[in-house]
Order: sequence, then C-alpha cells, then structure tokens
Amino acid sequence: MQVTAQLLSQSEVKHLTDTLIHDYCTERSNEARKIDERYALLWDSVQKLLLAGGKRLRPYMVLLAYRSYAPTEAIEDIYSALVAQEILHSAMLIHDDIIDRDLIRYGVKNVAGQYEESYKPYVAKEEERSHFALSAAILSGDMLLSDAHRLMWDVKRPLSFVRHADEILSKGVFEVIGGELLDTEATVLPKGSISPEHIARYKTASYSFISPLTMGAVLAGADETELSLLTELSEALGIGYQLRDDLLGVFGDSAKTGKSTSSDIIEGKRTVLIEQFDILASAEQKERFYALFHKNDSSDKAVNEAKKLLIDTGAKEKVESNIIELQQKSLHLLNKLHVSDDARAAFEQLINDCLTRTA
Amino acid sequence: MQVTAQLLSQSEVKHLTDTLIHDYCTERSNEARKIDERYALLWDSVQKLLLAGGKRLRPYMVLLAYRSYAPTEAIEDIYSALVAQEILHSAMLIHDDIIDRDLIRYGVKNVAGQYEESYKPYVAKEEERSHFALSAAILSGDMLLSDAHRLMWDVKRPLSFVRHADEILSKGVFEVIGGELLDTEATVLPKGSISPEHIARYKTASYSFISPLTMGAVLAGADETELSLLTELSEALGIGYQLRDDLLGVFGDSAKTGKSTSSDIIEGKRTVLIEQFDILASAEQKERFYALFHKNDSSDKAVNEAKKLLIDTGAKEKVESNIIELQQKSLHLLNKLHVSDDARAAFEQLINDCLTRTA
Repeated sequence: MQVTAQLLSQSEVKHLTDTLIHDYCTERSNEARKIDERYALLWDSVQKLLLAGGKRLRPYMVLLAYRSYAPTEAIEDIYSALVAQEILHSAMLIHDDIIDRDLIRYGVKNVAGQYEESYKPYVAKEEERSHFALSAAILSGDMLLSDAHRLMWDVKRPLSFVRHADEILSKGVFEVIGGELLDTEATVLPKGSISPEHIARYKTASYSFISPLTMGAVLAGADETELSLLTELSEALGIGYQLRDDLLGVFGDSAKTGKSTSSDIIEGKRTVLIEQFDILASAEQKERFYALFHKNDSSDKAVNEAKKLLIDTGAKEKVESNIIELQQKSLHLLNKLHVSDDARAAFEQLINDCLTRTA
Repeated sequence: MQVTAQLLSQSEVKHLTDTLIHDYCTERSNEARKIDERYALLWDSVQKLLLAGGKRLRPYMVLLAYRSYAPTEAIEDIYSALVAQEILHSAMLIHDDIIDRDLIRYGVKNVAGQYEESYKPYVAKEEERSHFALSAAILSGDMLLSDAHRLMWDVKRPLSFVRHADEILSKGVFEVIGGELLDTEATVLPKGSISPEHIARYKTASYSFISPLTMGAVLAGADETELSLLTELSEALGIGYQLRDDLLGVFGDSAKTGKSTSSDIIEGKRTVLIEQFDILASAEQKERFYALFHKNDSSDKAVNEAKKLLIDTGAKEKVESNIIELQQKSLHLLNKLHVSDDARAAFEQLINDCLTRTA
C-alpha cells in the first residue's frame, strides 16, 4: 500500500485499518494475559468481532479530511486516531447490540454471542448464561471506549490539534449517547414523543460523520470556516445516510444488505418513513397499517401490505426526495470547501455512495 | 473551606467533591437539554445517584498525594482530576450494578432503578421495563467513562504530567475491567480457577487506590522512586481494603456497614475467606460448610453455622492476620516516602482507617 499517496481508496483504508486493529487487539491481549489468561480471552473475542466486518468508513473519512487539508503530511502520524474512531464505534456497537438483544454482528457472533457459547459448559441455565455473557460484553465495550480516548494521546500532531480532536471525540460520544437514548425511548414512549430525524442527527450523523470528518480536518490544521462548512456537510450526509438506511430496511434487497426487510415493520421501528406515513395517510390507511405494524405474528403477506401502504401514501417517495435534498445540500457545501480537485472528487463519491447506496 | 490549607480533611474533600460533581452534572444536564429534554433527564438521574452517597475516598487520595509532593500549588488546578476519578468510579458502579443485578446504591435507586420506575407508565411488562432501564444505565455509564478522560484535559498542570495522569486513568480502567471480568467469572468457572486475592489486586487496589494516589503524585511532579513506592503502598492498601471488606461482609455489624452479613454466604461469594477455609478445613468441615454455602433457602441458623465454621477453622483469623501484614507493609513503605510529617500522619491515618474500619 502506498501510504505516501495523497488519497487512499476505501479498500486501501480498509486494509490499513484491519492491520492497525489487529495490532492493537494483539497488544491488548498480550497485556491482558499478564493479568490473567481469562482476560486475554476477552480481547481475543473482541478481535474476532472487530476483524469480522466493518466498512471502516470512519477511518476513511478521517483520512479523507486529513489529506484534504494536509496533503503532504505523513498519515502514519494519525494512525492512532483511525484506531480510536474504529474502536469507539465498536464499543457503541457492542453496547447497542446488548440494548437491541442481538447476538450476531457482521454475520458472526458478537462478544455476548461468543461468551454465551463459551460459558455453556459452566452455566446450564440459559437465562443465567445470557446474563454473564452480557456482563462480559458490557466490560469489553467499556474497555474500548476508554482506549479510544487513550489512543488520541498517541497522535503525533501539534498538541492543540490533538486536544481539539479529542474534544470532537468526546462530543461525538455525548451526542451519540443522547441519540441512542432517544432511539431506545422512541419505542417506549407514546408515539410522536421523539422525532426520528432528530434521532438520526444525534445517533448517526454525529459520531459517524461529523466526528471523523471534522477530526481529520482538525488534525490537519484546517481553519474554523472550513470546519464549520464540514460540520454542516457531514450533518446533512449523516442524516441522509440514516434515511437511506431506513428505506433499505423496508425496501432494500436483503440479498445485498444482508438485513431482513420485514423486521423493521414487525418490530415497529418508528423511522422517518413511518413519520411521513402518519402525515400523509388517510384515517382508513392508518387503521389498516397499524393493524399490520409492530405485530410479532405478521405474515409475509401482512408485511407486504404494510409496505404497499408506505408506497401508496407517498411516504416512501417523500423520504426519497428528502434524501435527494440532503444530497444536494451536501454537494452544495462541498463546493464551498477549499480543497483540491482530487479531494473534491473523493468527497463527491463519498456523498453519492452513502446516499444512493443499495447495500 | 480553606482550599489554601496544605491538607484537606476527608469531610472537606467530601464537601468540595459534592460541589464539583453537582456543577459537572448540572452543566451536562443543560447541554443534554439542547439535544432533548429526555436526555437531560438521564443526567438528572445520574446526578441524583452521584450525590446520594460516596465517601469521595478517591478524590481525597488524589489531593493527599498531590499536596504531599506539591504542598504550595493551588488545588483548583486539579479539580477536574477529582471529578474524573469520581465519575469513572460512578461509571464502574453503574455497570457493576447491572452485572450484579442491583437496583439500589447508597440506599437510593441507581440509574437502572430510577428508569425502571419512570418507565412504569409506558411499559407494562416487567421484563421489558427492566431491559429498557438497563439500557439507560449502560448509556449513562458510557457517558461518565468517556467524560472522565475528557476532564483530564482540563487539568491545569504541565502537559507531560497531565498525559501521564491520563495514562494512569487508562491503566486503572484496563485493570479494573480485568478484575471485574475475573470476579464475574469466579462465580461461573470451576472453583479455584481464579484466586480472590488476584481479583482484589485488579478489581479494587488498581483503580481505587493505585490510580488516585499515583495520579495525585504525578500531577504534583513526584519522581519515579516515589511513584514506585506509592504504587507498592497503594497495592498493599487496596488489597487489604478488599480483605477487610470481605470480612465485614460476613462478620461486620450490618447496622454500621449498611450491608447484609448473610448475602455473601447465601450467594456463594468466593472471597479470600472461603479460599482460606478451603485450605484449613477438614473434609468433614468442608462437607458441612458446602451444604450451607450458596443455598438460596438458607435460614439464619444455617448462615450462623457457616460463619462458625469460618471461625473454627481459623479462616477468619488467617484473613485478619493477612490484613495486619498488609497494614505493616503499607506503613513500612510510608516510612520510605519523602513527604512532610503532616502528610505522613495523614497517610498513616488513611491506612489505619481503611484496614481497621468497621463500616
């Protein structure tokens, strides 16, 4: 891999990040072994999960923004920021999976799933075993979250940049935790208590888009005007990414996305799509829809009828047009950035990939 | 309060820390409100818990070590390190309570307990409600853990000191997570897989003693020799603290400790006391003891018989003498420290308080 090249491709970043993550986990596992073999196993379990998947979109964005504003600086200087972004993300996924009661991630068992398996010889009662597995998963997420901050100190850039970058990381955590809470409570509290676009802003846009893009720019020494434009751009991009996710969750091709297209309807996920449906549907359509939505025993036929209602009312189309607006807004803001043509082209590709993706 | 006095008393530190914690939580709650009122409620819930109790022993130790090596520096400079230590501790307690399935802490409802209550109007099924409450608790712990690192940047000391102090914080997290995992697994894995003293070293001594005392010294600019002595001292002190805790958990006065003296036996907690019992007891005593230990339906009479076996075998006495050894070791190491007589007296009091306490 040419680490001296100005801009890295997504697959180059994926390869680089995988190597960095492997080294990080191996080092931690070795240190954990000095405490106890059992603790090393936790790290091995984390490593297995972290290397099983992940597009490494966050490290890609950190590097894209970094190289856009510091085209000649060595990217090795900020390697630990790439790992920090990625393990923060993993920490959030591990804890999010506990909240969502998922044991599978990237098609493999997550930390809780692996521990559930490994405790089988020792704990007969399934409920007890789940609880102990969940405990290991909580602890692994805590460790990754703490390490994300620790790794920021290893970034070899002027200290005021590093401090600012860690503030960005902290702000991302603060906002994503708020977003996660709202997302969880949206299923608990009365309908309409919390806007799904608001959740998308805090749960998705913040730590997954604003944080990596502004962190890369800050580490490159970009000025306040650029940071402010980049924040606006990544906010639009991140919200659009979530809206696309919501559409794919119902209308995607599950062979491509790897996700069920009925679970959002069966689990009653109140996405922007449902919010738009509530605005656009007639009383009759609503009555029909809510007889089908959030029912554990829904047949394929029922799910398909619910989907048809989302189309017929124009809810799907409205979300599609919202995404197009956010895409245009992102591209418009991109035009204002003071970056090279190469960087601009890479940003444009990123925006289009995120907002028109099918997987 | 005289913040210019060389050494603060435990009650002065308690008062100071309570004020700092109050200000921190209020600030965070106000920032959270900008995202959503519901997020501010999470912070209010955290604040309620954090101000309900806690001896503030960690901030006390940070300040004691700081003032021992920097007697004339302003303590205001390190206020954010005091908050960092305390909220890291809270994060660990909140997650530990999830692992231990406790809803009460400091005699009040913890975060999960408060949410369990507040979700009552919305979620009828108790199991579901517990799960959502647990989710809020996970998120609040994550936030406090991340903020502990963030606050270290606000310490107004030379940057190399601050960096070293944050490394100490990170190491404390790494070790306590290992200790927590071992502690959890000790109840899962076959008896004797994990030594309780090893757990005490990592679960208790590390982040509760070594971390605050060495952090205070590092922020004061203490040299490597002093840090090394202080690490040894706080390791002995921390292990002794845990052994005392284990004794109080069985032989304490529950009116003073506020804790049941039967639950450790009923829940089958494999403390150092039980380890010593296994070494010292006859086959007959063991048979009798394990007929009483870790039984959910134990009567007071059964618990008392188990306690008597712990005394008769000499297990209790052995742990008492281990504590005395650790106390002597701590005091011996204290003599080697280059600190003022006042500081030495305060350290001595700390050691004696921790190891001979009855509450």
